[in-house]
Amino acid sequence: MRTLFTAEMSELADDLAAMARHVSTAIDQAGEALLTKNVELAQRVIADDATLDDIEETVDERCVLLIAQQQPVGLDLRTIIVSLRISAALERMGDLAQHIAETARRAYPDSAFPDTHSDVVEGMVAAAKKAAQEVTELIEDRDLNVAAGIVSDDDTLDQLHAEAYQRLLADDFEGSPQEILNISLLARYFERFGDHAVGVSRRIVYLVTGDHSGEAARI
Amino acid sequence: MRTLFTAEMSELADDLAAMARHVSTAIDQAGEALLTKNVELAQRVIADDATLDDIEETVDERCVLLIAQQQPVGLDLRTIIVSLRISAALERMGDLAQHIAETARRAYPDSAFPDTHSDVVEGMVAAAKKAAQEVTELIEDRDLNVAAGIVSDDDTLDQLHAEAYQRLLADDFEGSPQEILNISLLARYFERFGDHAVGVSRRIVYLVTGDHSGEAARI
Repeated sequence: MRTLFTAEMSELADDLAAMARHVSTAIDQAGEALLTKNVELAQRVIADDATLDDIEETVDERCVLLIAQQQPVGLDLRTIIVSLRISAALERMGDLAQHIAETARRAYPDSAFPDTHSDVVEGMVAAAKKAAQEVTELIEDRDLNVAAGIVSDDDTLDQLHAEAYQRLLADDFEGSPQEILNISLLARYFERFGDHAVGVSRRIVYLVTGDHSGEAARI
Repeated sequence: MRTLFTAEMSELADDLAAMARHVSTAIDQAGEALLTKNVELAQRVIADDATLDDIEETVDERCVLLIAQQQPVGLDLRTIIVSLRISAALERMGDLAQHIAETARRAYPDSAFPDTHSDVVEGMVAAAKKAAQEVTELIEDRDLNVAAGIVSDDDTLDQLHAEAYQRLLADDFEGSPQEILNISLLARYFERFGDHAVGVSRRIVYLVTGDHSGEAARI
């Protein structure tokens, strides 16, 4: 029975890693669609989000069955409960990538953002891609050194979020209401993406170290 | 042992009801702060959000302990897992009320939104307040008739979200970039608030009816 349980816990970890890889692909493609006005790629991100939702459902069902059948306690139980939180956060990261792709699609054949914000958007895409790759790496390898990188990406996203809004509000800014709307939302999507990446990262750190102190302790 | 378990399940329900009441107060006050430029009220919403986070933590800990100590199966286990999802959604609704209050506070002593959007913002505040009250009622009384009202409030919020953006993009719109930014974000906060209310509602319906079909089945 114990062997079966270990095998199932390992499948759970595999599912979370699959979700993280899916999110990583989604934000890569959504970022490229946004920067290069590639409407087909945007379309693909939007269509593929259903797959992520399906994996999340599988993870959730697996967690409930594991608890019911194995009656886990201690770290095993916490791992399962934390896995539920991680799957919810990864699903949200996929939704945010989808919203970014939708913004690119709506603007097509125009760019979703004005030239004044090109470097900021490029920076947000790069930081979000990096965060998603590191989340995948952290889930797959449990190398805690990666966690610091995710916090730093989130800081970058917070700074670019503030910078995007400051430029909108500068006296000499001349974007259209549509461009202001797009930048307002895009900056928010990227900022939330970073928040969720940090949330996932803290939960993995908690599982690996058992550190119950501070933020890491939130299940 | 069984009696103790029932008592603890009932405390769990009480905690969720307390969270829902807190969210209801937060969105009431955030809405009023936004509509009447009441910066003290906005400040109170922002300060009070920590209480909601604390209750969420209590709920989460209670759920883990209940599973570990009582080894529940079947509906009891599902109730606990669903409670974790409900507490996460209520915590997010509180965050959104806080963001609305922050938007009002940042704009003070000005209004956060232009006159062109007064009726839309009033409509969003009213629908969000109604949804929060109904969520509280649903958690407290488990009267499923309330669930339809929440779906209808969410529809209203979706329509007002679209209307808010359409007005921003109308040829004769003359708001400042700051006002466009505020409306972009406010409409999104209210729309997400409605989504979470529906999510909570579906989960309660699932618990009460045991209906595993469609959306209601998502734990």
